[in-house]
Amino acid sequence: MRFLPSQEDNMAQKPSIPKGTRDFNPEQVAKRNYIFNTIRGTFETFGFQPIETPSFENSDTLMGKYGEEGDRLIFKILNSGNFFFDKKNKIDLPESIEDLKSLSAEVISKEQRIELNQFTSRISEKALRYDLTVPFARYVVQHQNEIEFPFKRYQIQPVWRADRPQKGRFREFYQCDADVVGSKSLWQEVEFIQLYDTVFSALKLEGVTIKINNRKILSGIAEVIGASDKLIDFTVALDKLDKIGEDKVKEEMLGKGISEAGITKLQPLFTLSGSFESQIDSLRSILSTSEEGQKGIEELAFINAAISELGLSTATLQLDVTLARGLNYYTGAIFEVSAPKDVKMGSIGGGGRYDDLTGIFGMKDVSGVGISFGLDRIYLVLEELGLFPEAVNKNVEVLFINFGDKEALFSLKAINALRLQGINSELYPDAAKMKKQMNHANKRAIPFVVLVGEEEITSNTYTLKNMVSGEQHKVSLEALINLVK
Amino acid sequence: MRFLPSQEDNMAQKPSIPKGTRDFNPEQVAKRNYIFNTIRGTFETFGFQPIETPSFENSDTLMGKYGEEGDRLIFKILNSGNFFFDKKNKIDLPESIEDLKSLSAEVISKEQRIELNQFTSRISEKALRYDLTVPFARYVVQHQNEIEFPFKRYQIQPVWRADRPQKGRFREFYQCDADVVGSKSLWQEVEFIQLYDTVFSALKLEGVTIKINNRKILSGIAEVIGASDKLIDFTVALDKLDKIGEDKVKEEMLGKGISEAGITKLQPLFTLSGSFESQIDSLRSILSTSEEGQKGIEELAFINAAISELGLSTATLQLDVTLARGLNYYTGAIFEVSAPKDVKMGSIGGGGRYDDLTGIFGMKDVSGVGISFGLDRIYLVLEELGLFPEAVNKNVEVLFINFGDKEALFSLKAINALRLQGINSELYPDAAKMKKQMNHANKRAIPFVVLVGEEEITSNTYTLKNMVSGEQHKVSLEALINLVK
Repeated sequence: MRFLPSQEDNMAQKPSIPKGTRDFNPEQVAKRNYIFNTIRGTFETFGFQPIETPSFENSDTLMGKYGEEGDRLIFKILNSGNFFFDKKNKIDLPESIEDLKSLSAEVISKEQRIELNQFTSRISEKALRYDLTVPFARYVVQHQNEIEFPFKRYQIQPVWRADRPQKGRFREFYQCDADVVGSKSLWQEVEFIQLYDTVFSALKLEGVTIKINNRKILSGIAEVIGASDKLIDFTVALDKLDKIGEDKVKEEMLGKGISEAGITKLQPLFTLSGSFESQIDSLRSILSTSEEGQKGIEELAFINAAISELGLSTATLQLDVTLARGLNYYTGAIFEVSAPKDVKMGSIGGGGRYDDLTGIFGMKDVSGVGISFGLDRIYLVLEELGLFPEAVNKNVEVLFINFGDKEALFSLKAINALRLQGINSELYPDAAKMKKQMNHANKRAIPFVVLVGEEEITSNTYTLKNMVSGEQHKVSLEALINLVK
Repeated sequence: MRFLPSQEDNMAQKPSIPKGTRDFNPEQVAKRNYIFNTIRGTFETFGFQPIETPSFENSDTLMGKYGEEGDRLIFKILNSGNFFFDKKNKIDLPESIEDLKSLSAEVISKEQRIELNQFTSRISEKALRYDLTVPFARYVVQHQNEIEFPFKRYQIQPVWRADRPQKGRFREFYQCDADVVGSKSLWQEVEFIQLYDTVFSALKLEGVTIKINNRKILSGIAEVIGASDKLIDFTVALDKLDKIGEDKVKEEMLGKGISEAGITKLQPLFTLSGSFESQIDSLRSILSTSEEGQKGIEELAFINAAISELGLSTATLQLDVTLARGLNYYTGAIFEVSAPKDVKMGSIGGGGRYDDLTGIFGMKDVSGVGISFGLDRIYLVLEELGLFPEAVNKNVEVLFINFGDKEALFSLKAINALRLQGINSELYPDAAKMKKQMNHANKRAIPFVVLVGEEEITSNTYTLKNMVSGEQHKVSLEALINLVK
């Protein structure tokens, strides 16, 4: 089961890893696991259950689900064996080698792109997971007869995207998703807001803002200003309000063909502020003529009333009518979580309601709602604010100095006893110079060192040294366990 | 961060997953995590620290490290973008389309295989992790200046192999490895035996056999019978002793060119039995003329003496001179763990000592020793013996029946309190018929159901129903928490 390199091979190059990927050292793994465990524990107290799906799916399952850009960013796996050999002869090879060579130019035509895609799908039938949502939809459809609906699942697994790597954006990264499928109840939106609040409170990350909007409100606004066909253009512009200001937003809307009259009707939207309730009141009047808009308002009002009644620990719920993520699929609530104001960071979570998750795999009318946590960004925020617990790294607590085989054997008996108590401890493997062994303990920041020599063996005791205070005591095994516990 | 399929796409196929891969449902994830957590916890009390490496490495890092067979079984990732476009023009495309087409036959020549491999390395520069050992070696060399040696690391991550899938063999599976690099001390072999014993005892899998051998003993035997150049042939034959019997093994050895005289000298080996000590004594006499053999014997004697003194909880250490795994890389101890005798299962763990792990990446003289746990097989054994704890699945403990919005809101206050106590609980999202909701609780085997109606709200109580006994009581929130805890 373990494969090791043969001795003959002697490639003396400086090794590296592919761009956009990362090694994690013990401290980083411990910190990441601290976040994962907090999220996982909360998911479970909220009644979500874990599933896992394969790292690669059939290409058919993924291709065409994330738009053209997505198709390009999906990592494709070369068929194994001779990928040119084709029993079924499904797709011909290009006609001539010139055909093939013409594909190798920096810029190729649309026809050549199609030819390239055909060739790709011939030699690659599997692709790496691109997100957790499409595999979840596939899972639900494939296992629909074993699943008891409504189904609350969570999934914490890596995904891969051939994106251009940059600060905070990687080609391999984890997603942490929780979704419910099989019910349209708004109580689920209420629970997801509580869930965000519970996770970030548990992480001591206080003061996050959970922004909420509703696609129906955006549709309502577009309807009222006579731009229903321009919903995306209009929301893309509106979304920039914070960054570029009212005038530029209006300019962009005009440029996209939204009428002056429509933009005038929007005026109250640009100055929408105050409490959740007062914003709801303003929206009621702005959207008085849109049935869909009214429905969106009622949904938000219901959610806000429940949250007001139940209370949040450390987060704040905020209505943000400019929030417009995922309009290609979200049909109701839209969520986005932003870090406390003093931290510069994009959203650390997001999600929403989608009315037809599983339709792409032939299973109709399954409504779902879900949220996601952005692990890497949460990590950066906790690091910046110094919020990782000190004891997050499960370091060795006790190192036994090795003075020789007899002493080592005596030490291992004590080490066994410590480990049975769950105390991480170890023997320095070699009877090296004491200074070297003490340096090792220092470099690894091990808090306790135990010295066992002839005298200790005779008196059945252990000399325990506290590496922080420098204090040193000769103690019994029982006392040793109590002192380092 | 979440991508969802667009609404337009309507592929109505029955979805499936690639052969050799698996979906895991909540119960399976919980059972796998139970094993992972037990192994991880033991690794940590033994002083091992976690690292993680990327799912894909540069092809250069992996290719050529696992033999020709391994190269074939490594999953290769297609370069993203136009993989035909080649700025550096490193490798030419085939001369003619006929050249290329000739590659697409079922059987191709050696030259064509080379051409295919060149083409492959041109269009694929990354490959999926094939084991955890080569990435670990790469990690140690790349980060050598940050690492404090001896370095005890563990790693629990999936690996991928394009093997033919069969019962118990998958294309995606987890490995759980612990290794120490930077010391030749035999105390590490002692610790790994204790580690195996501790993990399997914690899993309640009693009666496993930890088989140990030493490559130097095998070399010594080969030397004594004058077949040093036939070490692999000889050990491959010896390894079959259990399966095909003494006569057939001798036949095979003769066939491989080992002399009659040599085989006669081996005779005591075929009947080697009894205690570890008495086998050691026999080996001392068989290998009296081999210096290397004697060294192997002394190593085993040291390890056995230490383990005898320290004791094992539930496992047995057994000398098995026929154990011959990993001879391409192991240079000292060789380990293999077999399940209790009443379970038919291959090895559930293995490992050994290798003297030059990092040489392939240009860092010389780093000795290492490590072991691995076979997750999938351990899972099957625990399942067969019924050893998974009953409470392994962190199911929902309390379901609140939903009688309407007012009752739901009252219920959610209690649910908050339960969750704060770490009790997994949830509200049925819809005010569906009571029978449907009770069925849902039954199907999911949820042990407690809470009913909240007008009367309960007025009296600030909760009706708690035990789904196993059928008993039902009206209780306060405090009593409710205590009853379901």
